Amino acid sequence: MKAQVLHAYDEDLTADTWLTYEDVPDPVISKGSDVIVRVGGAGVCRTDIHVIEGVWRPHMDPQGDSLLPLILGHENAGWVEEVGPNVEGLKKGDPVIVHPKISNGTCVACRRGQDMHGEGSFPGLDSHGGYAEAIVTSERNLIALPKSLQPKEVAPYSDAGLTAYRAAKKATRHLLPGQYAVVIGAGGLGHIAIQVLRAMCAAEIIVVDTNDNSLQLAQECGADHLIKADGGEVDAVLSLTHGHGAEAVLDFVGERGTTHKGLAMTRNAGSYYVVGYGEDIKVPTVDLVISEKNIIGNLVGTWAELYELMELAHRGLVQLETHEYSLKDANFALRALHEGKIKGRAVLVP
Amino acid sequence: MKAQVLHAYDEDLTADTWLTYEDVPDPVISKGSDVIVRVGGAGVCRTDIHVIEGVWRPHMDPQGDSLLPLILGHENAGWVEEVGPNVEGLKKGDPVIVHPKISNGTCVACRRGQDMHGEGSFPGLDSHGGYAEAIVTSERNLIALPKSLQPKEVAPYSDAGLTAYRAAKKATRHLLPGQYAVVIGAGGLGHIAIQVLRAMCAAEIIVVDTNDNSLQLAQECGADHLIKADGGEVDAVLSLTHGHGAEAVLDFVGERGTTHKGLAMTRNAGSYYVVGYGEDIKVPTVDLVISEKNIIGNLVGTWAELYELMELAHRGLVQLETHEYSLKDANFALRALHEGKIKGRAVLVP
Amino acid sequence: MKAQVLHAYDEDLTADTWLTYEDVPDPVISKGSDVIVRVGGAGVCRTDIHVIEGVWRPHMDPQGDSLLPLILGHENAGWVEEVGPNVEGLKKGDPVIVHPKISNGTCVACRRGQDMHGEGSFPGLDSHGGYAEAIVTSERNLIALPKSLQPKEVAPYSDAGLTAYRAAKKATRHLLPGQYAVVIGAGGLGHIAIQVLRAMCAAEIIVVDTNDNSLQLAQECGADHLIKADGGEVDAVLSLTHGHGAEAVLDFVGERGTTHKGLAMTRNAGSYYVVGYGEDIKVPTVDLVISEKNIIGNLVGTWAELYELMELAHRGLVQLETHEYSLKDANFALRALHEGKIKGRAVLVP
Amino acid sequence: MKAQVLHAYDEDLTADTWLTYEDVPDPVISKGSDVIVRVGGAGVCRTDIHVIEGVWRPHMDPQGDSLLPLILGHENAGWVEEVGPNVEGLKKGDPVIVHPKISNGTCVACRRGQDMHGEGSFPGLDSHGGYAEAIVTSERNLIALPKSLQPKEVAPYSDAGLTAYRAAKKATRHLLPGQYAVVIGAGGLGHIAIQVLRAMCAAEIIVVDTNDNSLQLAQECGADHLIKADGGEVDAVLSLTHGHGAEAVLDFVGERGTTHKGLAMTRNAGSYYVVGYGEDIKVPTVDLVISEKNIIGNLVGTWAELYELMELAHRGLVQLETHEYSLKDANFALRALHEGKIKGRAVLVP
Repeated sequence: MKAQVLHAYDEDLTADTWLTYEDVPDPVISKGSDVIVRVGGAGVCRTDIHVIEGVWRPHMDPQGDSLLPLILGHENAGWVEEVGPNVEGLKKGDPVIVHPKISNGTCVACRRGQDMHGEGSFPGLDSHGGYAEAIVTSERNLIALPKSLQPKEVAPYSDAGLTAYRAAKKATRHLLPGQYAVVIGAGGLGHIAIQVLRAMCAAEIIVVDTNDNSLQLAQECGADHLIKADGGEVDAVLSLTHGHGAEAVLDFVGERGTTHKGLAMTRNAGSYYVVGYGEDIKVPTVDLVISEKNIIGNLVGTWAELYELMELAHRGLVQLETHEYSLKDANFALRALHEGKIKGRAVLVP
Repeated sequence: MKAQVLHAYDEDLTADTWLTYEDVPDPVISKGSDVIVRVGGAGVCRTDIHVIEGVWRPHMDPQGDSLLPLILGHENAGWVEEVGPNVEGLKKGDPVIVHPKISNGTCVACRRGQDMHGEGSFPGLDSHGGYAEAIVTSERNLIALPKSLQPKEVAPYSDAGLTAYRAAKKATRHLLPGQYAVVIGAGGLGHIAIQVLRAMCAAEIIVVDTNDNSLQLAQECGADHLIKADGGEVDAVLSLTHGHGAEAVLDFVGERGTTHKGLAMTRNAGSYYVVGYGEDIKVPTVDLVISEKNIIGNLVGTWAELYELMELAHRGLVQLETHEYSLKDANFALRALHEGKIKGRAVLVP
Repeated sequence: MKAQVLHAYDEDLTADTWLTYEDVPDPVISKGSDVIVRVGGAGVCRTDIHVIEGVWRPHMDPQGDSLLPLILGHENAGWVEEVGPNVEGLKKGDPVIVHPKISNGTCVACRRGQDMHGEGSFPGLDSHGGYAEAIVTSERNLIALPKSLQPKEVAPYSDAGLTAYRAAKKATRHLLPGQYAVVIGAGGLGHIAIQVLRAMCAAEIIVVDTNDNSLQLAQECGADHLIKADGGEVDAVLSLTHGHGAEAVLDFVGERGTTHKGLAMTRNAGSYYVVGYGEDIKVPTVDLVISEKNIIGNLVGTWAELYELMELAHRGLVQLETHEYSLKDANFALRALHEGKIKGRAVLVP
Repeated sequence: MKAQVLHAYDEDLTADTWLTYEDVPDPVISKGSDVIVRVGGAGVCRTDIHVIEGVWRPHMDPQGDSLLPLILGHENAGWVEEVGPNVEGLKKGDPVIVHPKISNGTCVACRRGQDMHGEGSFPGLDSHGGYAEAIVTSERNLIALPKSLQPKEVAPYSDAGLTAYRAAKKATRHLLPGQYAVVIGAGGLGHIAIQVLRAMCAAEIIVVDTNDNSLQLAQECGADHLIKADGGEVDAVLSLTHGHGAEAVLDFVGERGTTHKGLAMTRNAGSYYVVGYGEDIKVPTVDLVISEKNIIGNLVGTWAELYELMELAHRGLVQLETHEYSLKDANFALRALHEGKIKGRAVLVP
């Protein structure tokens, strides 16, 4: 089959082409629970660029280049092509979305539903992913799609959407009417988080972004208040919240000073959710003690949470703007993303 | 001042007039934290009829008629008229809604925020209520209203609305996307519960009622599915929920067989919320063991929950249909309620 | 291999022998995730007698005798004998305890960790169980035992212990210092629940039982107060709890009036946990509304909860009294249990 | 009456005497809910030294010395001496412990039971405290002591104990059997936290301290594992926890590198609780994202939590080592604390 393959890391992102479009062996069933999925769409994510740069090498590939050549692509959806002998409930042709973590399902974390904290692999990061015509995964990773949802339209939910969903869902578990949620960064993840907050709690939603287009998108997604991040955004949030700050602040940027500002926007006894990453958080312990604020880390999400997100999408409560590119144009799409030229989410279609 | 006074219980509800419109002494400040509220509106509630019947006598007045004469009215809102010497933060003229329970604020239940489980009194049931030109209460019972809300428009929230809010809020704490909530009875409380569910979770909402007008109201409030209760309502709910039942069933009727049906509509591991009352629940222990269902009792709500509900009302996320009656026409309004002729909620205005 | 087989239901429990000790085919691996366990011990449970009586027939065997002949035994532990080709992390000889529910692991309930609410089978009730030299199960059902625990000593934890653990654990999630837990019935399940409460919360534990030996056992397990159930047990609990009742009441009897008494012992806003079963619960809706009490159903427990219970056992925080019988004496042990002659828990050893 | 008064801050802590023992006016009742408490004991706390240094000036006294002269002492217990006209349920002579925060009881935070997040004052920090023969407080701040507890023996619970209790209680809400809790620093707060963990959950408790005496005390308090902090403490914790770290890490030091080490000891998806303070937390956002760890701030505790702690103390589940000093020797006790010469907790007795 055809696939887009990474043969060498490019630390400075200066190479002309990052991936090579080439013929690779078809994936095969090796375990009774394996499933081969014909890819309908694979989301293009900033994490792909980080993989190309080698940012994830220390975590996924500590021995150097032993993972290469690697097929990228960790946001996949498509149709079941072939199932292992022990797979029940899925058959050829079923449309599915693929949870990004292949976990074994038998460790304590998995048995508590915390898939992403069990042992396992992340195709597209540490094994072959979905920038290809097909991918092999486990029945544990698949969610059958309702007829209302097309694979290429939902692929980015499997990682970007799921991460936004989990962080926003955590906030909705404690947000009450009369309280506030701040979303910093209304981009690919942030604009989903706004819709999730809208659907699952009655807090007033304040969105902070540097970009007017993003703020416009935030408004369409249901934001109650828009704040242009021009240096006065902390004061603006404090003013809207009667001087107290917001009970939940979700930071989808995590760099260029948003961590300091995000904590300053957080009300005492409230929670600051870290989703975007880049800079260090630096905070005096005495401030956390006096304020009793919490700093909450966020990783992708569970299988059940991806199922919940698909339900929201099916009912139209969450919508995603996607732009389709041909699989053979992966480098073009990645370059466009790197240069900030993609609005919404790019999806590669074989 | 003028007030509507109950002088004698009427077990059969056959008397020509139940309350007497008469002159009574003005309420007075006796404690530093007391507040006199000029009544702007007092909701007319089925519980008032139960008080007239003597249903609450064993609970509130076990010695017989020692509570009579009694001014009814437990759903009150108005304006601060006079404050005790220790009251801070409220002044004459402030519009307020009155929490129905006067608790002392110092017991463990109160200190955990569970006002209605502390010691205290319920004006309108065990002491003089708001079917009058003024009422004395405590600063602890008052919530200042935003300018968007008028006392006579919000008075019924203080008990009926608060009860519906608390039950629905409990359900929203566990309802997830892809799950179902059933509301049995879309009347005064039920139609508020529907709006609360809509605002605070993404479950699909199924409403069951015998009355077409109520189902119409339910739809306007945001119900996803309407079921006419004609004997096939359990099957209809099971059909909508893929044979499993709903994760939350809120029963605002509690008689004429709804408890048995409500439990049958509840999914295994789900919860059946008792709000309306009348009949007995009768269920085999083995059924609860096999199904792991929960039966959840619901009393009014906390002060903080009334505050939350006012926030929902202020933002238009919950709306209440009220009909204004003059205080002197209390018997007329009560009779109309008893005969099922009031749509929405009647409010007495002095 | 040898096994104890049920060939006919005995509704009146009057037959001379219930099970037949006979040769049956050895279990075989049919799926990649299957595991054959050599039985080290199989707990003898009142549910076995209910199976013999046919109580479970409507649930497990609605078509009549289609399940028979059936090997009983749903509380099993032993050693891994053979593993399917996809099983990782378990090898021949490993000591294991067997979770009683074989679930598929792919439905939403399973993916949230709620094994017992997913699809699946209950060996010993609807398929062949552990009253045999070996049993086939899934790798999903096994927990490796620490060296401190022997299969025949822990087998009853897999169902009786797990059920007690789950109910008590639910209570510990809300019980705070200064609050009370009542355990009704300090038998096989109840005495485990007392130890779990002792280990996992600081509530004062009140135990109610008709039997002096059970109360003696309760004291050894850590009960703070013992009440002989002689008709005055509700008053005794109210007296100990300053007239309020207990925040949690766990009923391991569920018949002979304990449901009515248990609810009467429950404090307003508290929870009554149904574990034992037999009679109907009958309660006026108005009582649940005024008191805001909850009635909580309880089914066995999750895989992760069995893991947690094994940790408690490993550390000596929960101990279980077992009595060993030879597998060929199953009828003798069942008869002894039926006649109330077994203290602690009988275990069949092949 | 006699009191110990701070007349001037001493930034370098070099003055010969910090407080002056002098005659001051007796406290008086000014509000209906006021209560005068005759001091039975006032705990000596490191925060007192920080007040003397002026550390709290920016928070409590931003205009400079306007708070001085100030009577210190924020950990108080004693006997009711006089009550305001609206106080019910307390009378002269009742032994009481004093919650450190005087809140108004009417704001939303108070009404949710979150006293320390409402408006109000902290006697001993921003108004006169308990280094005196008497102190004025509110009925809202008092908890009647059971006969088993003497004021001078429990005074330090009101702040130090309460802070330790709240942090440990938060951890017990998520700690399950088979999991681990690390306590960094087994001093005045830490040794209470160990006992609280022991009483309220079944996690294995690992204690890390630089001091052998503290480790000895930790063992007496119920620690399962002791680790001398000699540079290898992170590896030691990882080794004990099978390489994963602990689900809860409670840091009662917060300086000299414990924040970095504490986070390193925390398991993925676990929580690091900040109680001690001094240094900055510095952590890359990407680390929080990959690990999904939480950083949890901790402030004193609610009134209800102080009530819970008194219940633990009453039942002997938590014990506190105190050393009595005469009120006139306050400077001596403070100096001894500053020089690390006090084991357990010093208490000033008038």
